[in-house]
Amino acid sequence: MKMKAAVAWQAKAPLEIEEIEIQGPKEGEVLVKMVATGVCHTDAYTLSGADPEGLFPSILGHEGGAIVQEVGSGVTSLQPGDHVIPLYTPECGTCKFCTSGKTNLCQAIRSTQGKGLMPDGTSRLSKDGKPIYHYMGTSTFAEYSVLPEIALAKINKEAPLEKVCLLGCGVTTGIGAVLNTAKVEPGATVAIFGLGGIGLSCIQGAVLAKASRIIAVDINPEKETIARQLGATDFLNAKDISGSITEAIIDMTDGGVDYSFECVGSVKLMRDALECCHKGWGESVIIGVAGAGEEIATRPFQLVTGRVWKGSAFGGVKGRSQLPTYVEDYLSGKIKVDEMVTHVLPFEDINKAFDLMHEGKSIRSVITF
Amino acid sequence: MKMKAAVAWQAKAPLEIEEIEIQGPKEGEVLVKMVATGVCHTDAYTLSGADPEGLFPSILGHEGGAIVQEVGSGVTSLQPGDHVIPLYTPECGTCKFCTSGKTNLCQAIRSTQGKGLMPDGTSRLSKDGKPIYHYMGTSTFAEYSVLPEIALAKINKEAPLEKVCLLGCGVTTGIGAVLNTAKVEPGATVAIFGLGGIGLSCIQGAVLAKASRIIAVDINPEKETIARQLGATDFLNAKDISGSITEAIIDMTDGGVDYSFECVGSVKLMRDALECCHKGWGESVIIGVAGAGEEIATRPFQLVTGRVWKGSAFGGVKGRSQLPTYVEDYLSGKIKVDEMVTHVLPFEDINKAFDLMHEGKSIRSVITF
Repeated sequence: MKMKAAVAWQAKAPLEIEEIEIQGPKEGEVLVKMVATGVCHTDAYTLSGADPEGLFPSILGHEGGAIVQEVGSGVTSLQPGDHVIPLYTPECGTCKFCTSGKTNLCQAIRSTQGKGLMPDGTSRLSKDGKPIYHYMGTSTFAEYSVLPEIALAKINKEAPLEKVCLLGCGVTTGIGAVLNTAKVEPGATVAIFGLGGIGLSCIQGAVLAKASRIIAVDINPEKETIARQLGATDFLNAKDISGSITEAIIDMTDGGVDYSFECVGSVKLMRDALECCHKGWGESVIIGVAGAGEEIATRPFQLVTGRVWKGSAFGGVKGRSQLPTYVEDYLSGKIKVDEMVTHVLPFEDINKAFDLMHEGKSIRSVITF
Repeated sequence: MKMKAAVAWQAKAPLEIEEIEIQGPKEGEVLVKMVATGVCHTDAYTLSGADPEGLFPSILGHEGGAIVQEVGSGVTSLQPGDHVIPLYTPECGTCKFCTSGKTNLCQAIRSTQGKGLMPDGTSRLSKDGKPIYHYMGTSTFAEYSVLPEIALAKINKEAPLEKVCLLGCGVTTGIGAVLNTAKVEPGATVAIFGLGGIGLSCIQGAVLAKASRIIAVDINPEKETIARQLGATDFLNAKDISGSITEAIIDMTDGGVDYSFECVGSVKLMRDALECCHKGWGESVIIGVAGAGEEIATRPFQLVTGRVWKGSAFGGVKGRSQLPTYVEDYLSGKIKVDEMVTHVLPFEDINKAFDLMHEGKSIRSVITF
């Protein structure tokens, strides 16, 4: 079948929208029609060429909202017409990771997904017979996508796909990091570094967790308004601070915060986030994706005196079993997504979404098909 | 009052046993008579001059077993004749840290303790009128010591002080790191780096936690026997491994261990200990004290994919309320201490205890007075 897709032919070049071929679903696979997709920093990171695992040509995109068109043999949990969110972290339910009770990092299809291929080791995408790679197992920058059944979360049909597509990455990642990874408790103090879609969602998570103080940190003063709208109690412009950001936060909080979240991908900020945590119990969660080969560092004394350093991927959320409840929470007003959508663009303008992000003008642009 | 003490006049020099002055206890303080003291790597670390917080002249020593001689005004929980273990991590019971329910790191007297002084900002130790610093708030390398009431754990008089003195640091630190900090659960796999008193005690902790596999790592092949005696299921001589120790452990355990413990103080090993943990849930605990200014490093991806990096001080054990139960567990045979005591030396031979440690011939030497 032919479809329109935004092809990343090579790093550092704009996406090119053109007609390519997509094969139908094989056993255990599902063809979905994309209704909307968010554009995330991770897409830009790979397109920049900095991602050592980036493959070209490929179809990027991983924050999708879609409708099932066709199911392959053996697919039992989905049928045409179902509304779904593609999952870059699938949930097979049977691997060592899924059954551990300790992580959401299902590894059932990790090796082929990392190679830009379907679980059988081939691609469903091509142009003039030449294969195009899948991306993060989702490839949502196209009218259609083929995904394994285990990489699709079936959600409530009442939810607007052009909004809840953002639950496929940023919003869930931020909220989940606070609620699942850090398990912030009522009354706790929190610092959040970087107020993109994920950082703003961490604010939401901290509000849901009933944190007593939510310190939002960015270098863009324009982020203050939405940060406070979502529930931040303090806003720090890191550029306005004379000393170190760590000291500023420690001073503000009589010794440091109980929890901190790094949502930028800067190894320097990851250290700051750890070191502004309170001695004895402060926990820092890394969410941002650092550049290839970059390393975090600190004095071990920081940990020996009780701080904990951890990380979070997709907010610790298991996609098939837990993401649908995030959609319900959106429908009931508990989780805010609309506030994150600063721009809605037609598919043809997808490169503009990247421009808006790079210019710091958007929180999330949503592409509609 | 005059007493014999082993004075550390300066870094890198042997201790000198001589007669010095000790003042009686002031308000809230207690004079204890030392019966025995262990000699720990931390004493050697400070004596080496590498400890940036090391002060000279001072009386080192922090693994003591003692008997209360005299109590100052206001002391209510101790009386002459009580058997006690000095605590370098006190427990006031009322500070922000003690009441947090999250840490054992009482900070009530931290600032003066770090300066080698009693809580009133002065020393009780002197020679010919010239003050000598306290060390870790304990200074057990002397016939007597003065400590704040909050820095003494009252223990069962039936316990032999020349054994349970080791519960004042090494044994409790190792066992507590496994049980309190990591909270190792039955069936878990564990790797322990460095088989000194703390590492061997981590093995004990892992046995108490019912770990299914306990991989003990050292570069001294003579440690294998006692490691297995205490319950290690595997011994790895890091010098005998052709590839990296991390890969070796990952291969042995189908992806890595559930928990690891660094008991050496090497920042390189701290990284290995983290990176040999299982993706998704592995936790690594730093116990060893690194050299001044040294830093740990890793790729943030290690944490984002589910590993947790933490540290432990005194095994997360609250000295006054929890250490007495460790003594009871020793008396009931649950905790082994005798096996750690490879040498018993008279006070006069205290420098020999340092030699034995540096030569790798002792696990713990106990000095008796």
